[in-house]
Amino acid sequence: MYRDPVLSLQPLAGVPVAMRPLRVGMIGIGTVGSGTFRVLARNQAEIAGRAGRGIEVVMVAARNLPRAAGIVGEGVPLTDDPMHVATHPDIDVLVEVAGGTGPARDWVLAAIAHGKHVVTANKALLAEHGAEIFTAARQHGVAVAYEGAVAVSIPIVKALREGLTANRIEWVAGIINGTTNFILSKMRDEGLDFAAALAEAQALGYAEADPAFDIEGIDAAHKLTLLAANAFGTPVRFADVQVEGITTLQGADVACAEQLGFRIKLLGIARRREEGVELRVQPALVPATHLMAHVNGSMNAVMVKGDASGVTMYYGAGAGSEQTASAVIADLVDVARLDGTHAAQRVPHLGFHAHAMSDLKALPRAAVCTSHYLRVPVHSAGQIEAVAALLAGHRVPVQQMVLAAERPEAGPQVLVLTEPAPQAAIDLAVHALQASAAVAGAVTTLRVEALAG
Amino acid sequence: MYRDPVLSLQPLAGVPVAMRPLRVGMIGIGTVGSGTFRVLARNQAEIAGRAGRGIEVVMVAARNLPRAAGIVGEGVPLTDDPMHVATHPDIDVLVEVAGGTGPARDWVLAAIAHGKHVVTANKALLAEHGAEIFTAARQHGVAVAYEGAVAVSIPIVKALREGLTANRIEWVAGIINGTTNFILSKMRDEGLDFAAALAEAQALGYAEADPAFDIEGIDAAHKLTLLAANAFGTPVRFADVQVEGITTLQGADVACAEQLGFRIKLLGIARRREEGVELRVQPALVPATHLMAHVNGSMNAVMVKGDASGVTMYYGAGAGSEQTASAVIADLVDVARLDGTHAAQRVPHLGFHAHAMSDLKALPRAAVCTSHYLRVPVHSAGQIEAVAALLAGHRVPVQQMVLAAERPEAGPQVLVLTEPAPQAAIDLAVHALQASAAVAGAVTTLRVEALAG
Repeated sequence: MYRDPVLSLQPLAGVPVAMRPLRVGMIGIGTVGSGTFRVLARNQAEIAGRAGRGIEVVMVAARNLPRAAGIVGEGVPLTDDPMHVATHPDIDVLVEVAGGTGPARDWVLAAIAHGKHVVTANKALLAEHGAEIFTAARQHGVAVAYEGAVAVSIPIVKALREGLTANRIEWVAGIINGTTNFILSKMRDEGLDFAAALAEAQALGYAEADPAFDIEGIDAAHKLTLLAANAFGTPVRFADVQVEGITTLQGADVACAEQLGFRIKLLGIARRREEGVELRVQPALVPATHLMAHVNGSMNAVMVKGDASGVTMYYGAGAGSEQTASAVIADLVDVARLDGTHAAQRVPHLGFHAHAMSDLKALPRAAVCTSHYLRVPVHSAGQIEAVAALLAGHRVPVQQMVLAAERPEAGPQVLVLTEPAPQAAIDLAVHALQASAAVAGAVTTLRVEALAG
Repeated sequence: MYRDPVLSLQPLAGVPVAMRPLRVGMIGIGTVGSGTFRVLARNQAEIAGRAGRGIEVVMVAARNLPRAAGIVGEGVPLTDDPMHVATHPDIDVLVEVAGGTGPARDWVLAAIAHGKHVVTANKALLAEHGAEIFTAARQHGVAVAYEGAVAVSIPIVKALREGLTANRIEWVAGIINGTTNFILSKMRDEGLDFAAALAEAQALGYAEADPAFDIEGIDAAHKLTLLAANAFGTPVRFADVQVEGITTLQGADVACAEQLGFRIKLLGIARRREEGVELRVQPALVPATHLMAHVNGSMNAVMVKGDASGVTMYYGAGAGSEQTASAVIADLVDVARLDGTHAAQRVPHLGFHAHAMSDLKALPRAAVCTSHYLRVPVHSAGQIEAVAALLAGHRVPVQQMVLAAERPEAGPQVLVLTEPAPQAAIDLAVHALQASAAVAGAVTTLRVEALAG
């Protein structure tokens, strides 16, 4: 790879030396790619003023060449061969914004082998192949940057890897999928059930025609995987995440949670414990007074608890072309500020140097211990006593127990907030409730997350 | 300065090469200094795993040596001569956490002249002498890092200088003083007046015995100065900030704002306009549904609007020993990751390279144009008509006008929300109101900030 001698010799001058622009090859010119191209062009003076040099897209690979030509205009060579861009001698950095995992993995590994830095917004790629990609990057001394893969415009990877380096991170909790947060906000604000809220999200373009990745929690799990690795210095391991989406969430529970002073959010949670790391994506009750409860619509937020910093939170858009481009370009500026020195890999890919990575294991579901919300349909209001007796018999400590005020037409419902209890105890109690003559239908359980300091 | 040849040759290896620790000299071992010392010791393995090398305090200057010895223990040389530490050949970085401006300026400039990097949490020093200090640092090729000077544990300098580099920043708005936010939260939650809330803050240790710096907005103005410079690439100019504290804020206005659906926060606002930059610190009404309205107690938050990113927000503790240490140590890790290469000044001190700095002028108060809240005491409720007529006569467009529901014992009060209007128009209208026979007492005005995308 070309190393800029001017930058190597005078990186400290802060004067307008004529530095060669950083040359970018881009694979994919869809939503994120076109946003990146547009923002780089619009803010080029400002970006160069910050980076100390220009950043230029010199080559683009796209499937639909006429469409791509309409976006990038004259003067930028186009190809339909991504590998041509990934390995081209004229590029310093590959921006991979095509998505997908198989071919993207090949392009990224080829670029790394050719000494190119890589910037990607592809969370699935890194969640599944991150270990292999980061190892290759380390061997070849290049950066693989992925701020746009985690929380759109929010610089949370930077916060974890650089801003909070003093801390032993205790937990990270995030609303990290804009589509599901939009749907949950609609369910609450307008009393819609899940299907109606999803349809509205699709009509407004907040949800894909095939929304499975979002509503089943997979997208959030991909992002959580990267957050957890950076927080704890653990390997990227998507397969270990307990994933639960919002497809079975009922409007009744949104309303009943409200009655108890909570809102339901799809949270990605990574928590370090003595025995290992909890990694889970699930709809959970958050206190209505908590800042996370006020993250509405398609917005995202990530909360981090460090032992020195205390709680910090990072909030921003959960989707969007230029919003994601903001993160992609920030990564390019990071590379531009160092490419040409021997320190391009200044920050380890996952925050910690390889020798300091931890092998903390992911904990199984049964080991997770939180408070729970239970909604128990009963035949008559008086049977709240029977529910209480049964929970006491299973040593599930109860914090609060009331009858649902909402939707009386559905019959009496006992709402329970438990104290923190192991999942195994909750499961046994729910089995027993389900078998009890007092209980008139399926018992619903959701976790309660205090997200307190 | 010593340059580590191992690091220079193999910064990319990510393997446990035996790298010399970064050697820190510290001036001041008070709240922030002792927190920094404690966290560095407690989390040393984790910090070294991230930085790629250890970070060691090798020397401390303090006024009270016995007290200092009680904190740092055996093995760390102490001196009562700060200049001895600032210029000592055995240190790589000076951590200045003593505070004050005159002597601190001398120590920092001496350290820079001796080729030391500087990390400081001293906002007053940088707000007043930043231009001189950053120029010297550029000439000597060293870093001057100051994350701990702006928003305690929140990595907002990093977000502005590195995370949002793609953007043309439109505005920054922050709750950046923990003491005043604590007082305002008390006034609202408990209906206290300012004096009572201040006394409670002092009793709980949230306010100094002499709280002037906080409650008069000076501390927030120092921080705003640094935020604005990093957002817009403008010089540090504390003298240009319009500063208004909360000392004259009345409980009645907190209650009346609530009636209108707003909360009062002390905001530091920097907004870029065609003609220049607004720089102001003032108590202002924020919509009660806005996330910033839910930043309570001694917490801080900064909201940034970028043209690509949209709105992002950063939230965390507004005070605290280890909370500030978190930022100081993050700066040390940044230095550790690059010291020994020729790129220690990777990121320009104020985000932009010197040649790309802008000379956008600060706008005068009269040019600021926002919505306003007015509370107008009148002799009888019917005189709301007279107030309306007078405002119309002065071409102040009114959004909403109602009678105060709160504190009827104070007599009828007309509450007005105006549409955005130039300050000059508001001033004239208030003068006229004050002279009107309908008006029974002093008219109160406060800005309204929508903080919308």
